[in-house]
Amino acid sequence: NEVVDILLAYIVESFDRETKVIDFHYPNELMQRNNWELQDEPESLDDILVSCRATLKYAIKTAHPRYFNQLSTGLDMVGLAADWLTSTANTNMFTYEVAPVFVLLEYVTLKKMREIIGWQDGSGDGIFSPGGAISNMYAMLLARFKMFPEVKEKGMSSVPRLAAFTSEHSHFSIKKGAAALGIGTESVICVKGFVPFFVSATAGTTVYGAFDPLIAVSDICKKYNVWFHVDGAWGGSLLMSRRHRWKLDGVDRANSVTWNPHKMMSVPLQCSALLVREEGLMQNCNQMHACYLFQQDKHYDLSYDTGDKALQCGRHVDIFKLWLMWRAKGTIGFESQIDKCLELSEYLYNKIKDREGYEMVFDGKPQHTNVCFWYLPPGMRHIVDKEEKNKRLHKVAPVIKARMMEYGTTMVSYQPQGDKVNFFRMVISNPAATFEDIDFLIEEIERLGHDL
Amino acid sequence: NEVVDILLAYIVESFDRETKVIDFHYPNELMQRNNWELQDEPESLDDILVSCRATLKYAIKTAHPRYFNQLSTGLDMVGLAADWLTSTANTNMFTYEVAPVFVLLEYVTLKKMREIIGWQDGSGDGIFSPGGAISNMYAMLLARFKMFPEVKEKGMSSVPRLAAFTSEHSHFSIKKGAAALGIGTESVICVKGFVPFFVSATAGTTVYGAFDPLIAVSDICKKYNVWFHVDGAWGGSLLMSRRHRWKLDGVDRANSVTWNPHKMMSVPLQCSALLVREEGLMQNCNQMHACYLFQQDKHYDLSYDTGDKALQCGRHVDIFKLWLMWRAKGTIGFESQIDKCLELSEYLYNKIKDREGYEMVFDGKPQHTNVCFWYLPPGMRHIVDKEEKNKRLHKVAPVIKARMMEYGTTMVSYQPQGDKVNFFRMVISNPAATFEDIDFLIEEIERLGHDL
Repeated sequence: NEVVDILLAYIVESFDRETKVIDFHYPNELMQRNNWELQDEPESLDDILVSCRATLKYAIKTAHPRYFNQLSTGLDMVGLAADWLTSTANTNMFTYEVAPVFVLLEYVTLKKMREIIGWQDGSGDGIFSPGGAISNMYAMLLARFKMFPEVKEKGMSSVPRLAAFTSEHSHFSIKKGAAALGIGTESVICVKGFVPFFVSATAGTTVYGAFDPLIAVSDICKKYNVWFHVDGAWGGSLLMSRRHRWKLDGVDRANSVTWNPHKMMSVPLQCSALLVREEGLMQNCNQMHACYLFQQDKHYDLSYDTGDKALQCGRHVDIFKLWLMWRAKGTIGFESQIDKCLELSEYLYNKIKDREGYEMVFDGKPQHTNVCFWYLPPGMRHIVDKEEKNKRLHKVAPVIKARMMEYGTTMVSYQPQGDKVNFFRMVISNPAATFEDIDFLIEEIERLGHDL
Repeated sequence: NEVVDILLAYIVESFDRETKVIDFHYPNELMQRNNWELQDEPESLDDILVSCRATLKYAIKTAHPRYFNQLSTGLDMVGLAADWLTSTANTNMFTYEVAPVFVLLEYVTLKKMREIIGWQDGSGDGIFSPGGAISNMYAMLLARFKMFPEVKEKGMSSVPRLAAFTSEHSHFSIKKGAAALGIGTESVICVKGFVPFFVSATAGTTVYGAFDPLIAVSDICKKYNVWFHVDGAWGGSLLMSRRHRWKLDGVDRANSVTWNPHKMMSVPLQCSALLVREEGLMQNCNQMHACYLFQQDKHYDLSYDTGDKALQCGRHVDIFKLWLMWRAKGTIGFESQIDKCLELSEYLYNKIKDREGYEMVFDGKPQHTNVCFWYLPPGMRHIVDKEEKNKRLHKVAPVIKARMMEYGTTMVSYQPQGDKVNFFRMVISNPAATFEDIDFLIEEIERLGHDL
């Protein structure tokens, strides 16, 4: 009960704009400031409460309306309650036997998501996995198995060299997946003599929020009989929005779709789904028939024992928070939340596109909530030498970001990309953010950066 | 607040032996009993509370003192409080920037675990992953990369056919890992012409709880320069016990160790660690340098950005519950909890080994808390024809288990193994279990099975 009081107070504080987003300390300093060591002897319950308070004191307030640092931001109270219930139920997704309700809710929710994608009657398969990277790896695994089922027993030595295609702005998990699966990162670029087996189109790239043209990509995949995967980890949620779902036109032609409700839909971490059009493939690809879990003589319908289609054995219950939020908001509640985030990003874009001291990183209106821009402090605006200017500009975002963290007022991401020097990538997935918070962000960047 | 009240009442109920372990219904029945559908329109908060109550009503009470069905059982209140705090903090392990405290706690805890394994000064590396199957897959991935670093870019076509070795009682995740990584399940058995790269010794097999002789295995691995992995997902926690840790003698020679605190240490699901002896290897093997997350010009020590050594991008915070429990119990608290479970299993073994109607599946005292046995109803005890007897015996455990679930009094696992017909596998990891619960289990098996 005392922990609950601490947590509820923390939540109230997190939503308060007067609170710092972060009480930042360097790793060594934070390590020394408290005694975090593990001992042989037990601590008292009072000490445990002290530890809880200390942990929260130095935590990032990801629910803070001015926390824009990642694709996952904000804190939904129904989602949180659902997550607490999930922790309390403390079970495992591998069989119906130990998670009857959660297995059914996963079934219901995956079906609904497939309907939204546009697969007939919501048919197909899917799984909630620990994050988009693993969802994408599942897709690649299934594609390889679909084309060469013998790879499961014989390994890669039984198949020709494979090639996967994806855009240079796709998520690094595609390369990680290729490395892990024994395909090799070099095979993610097309080389003659390789057999193409997998195309990953990105619906909402991580940095620019750009959408690949799914219909055009799907035509090529169909022509060459290649698995068509849509990585909608970030952009997939736009399917919930009547105003924005056209950006994913063609998604219904995909063989598989990654969609992370923990990003744009603000479901607590983690909640990532892989949806698969063909039923039974996941089971065939991954099953190993462990007889101590998946006994064939159980007294109920075994199709609800989902464990053998996963790469994991035990699997955390990630479904309930999404399901309960969906019930509480309805589809239209998610829709208006998503539409509002896109509206805020358009507001930001309109505000800075012609403002003095700002340069946009790419032309035109953002497709998602990603707004990528440079801020040029007054002292740098008139530098003519391009190389000199870029060299100095490259250092601006890191310094402003470090100052943001020291003041704890807001957090936003930055990065270089290709030949482009460090720029800010603003993303809005936080339902608590308002127009005023966008105004604040701009003022804060100027306040912290004007002397650079 | 109302959800908290519901949850606290549920917890009290779960620990009460008078409560059913499960209120069992068949999938179709459960699907129809409630409206689980997702709608366009939002539900009221009252309806949401109804959904929460319904979900808990049909959930397995994994905290129940008579729930013995899986390797992960029981509910620790400090662990639960820590998990609620984790949900509330709702962040991601990929960088120090967004999870400063949790990243430090992971660092502190992994180091402590490596010290317990016996690696010098606790040096090495490691990660918390979503379950033992993924931890084991990491180990195989690292072993392959260590022997053939070019596999990362060139894939399996650049390396000879590989062979991994493991016992036939090892966990199925070794085969799943081999399939996923492009090695092929057939390569898990030794074949001439293959290059051995990986040996997985099991410390505590899933069904029998048996320990491979780690010193002997490590000698062979050393001789042939093969990666020596110890899958201690189930048995690794015995390292915390001065009385039982000899069963893992030689573990300090391992290149990597899987150890799941969510099993024998009753940490809420999920909490699995892979510990790696060589520092830097995970980073080299898995890094893809995503510049939008792992900027090299950040203002703090980048060695705390752990994300690029993971296969996942976002990674759930699994550390806090283990860390807080460790603080609350101390190492000696975990030790006495583990010792007590082993004592209970010895009590069960002694009770049934000579009891009429029981046959043990393997000879001698169990090494872990796994007690594997057949129960023969009175009507079957005098059947002489072995085939006839086995045929009937095979059906006994499933029926008793189904009846247990219908009455909801207790749950215990059963399975066949090799040429052995269905037998019960009792495991004890539930700190709430007592000698009386063991007595109850035996009475209940006899009550539910004597007429068969």
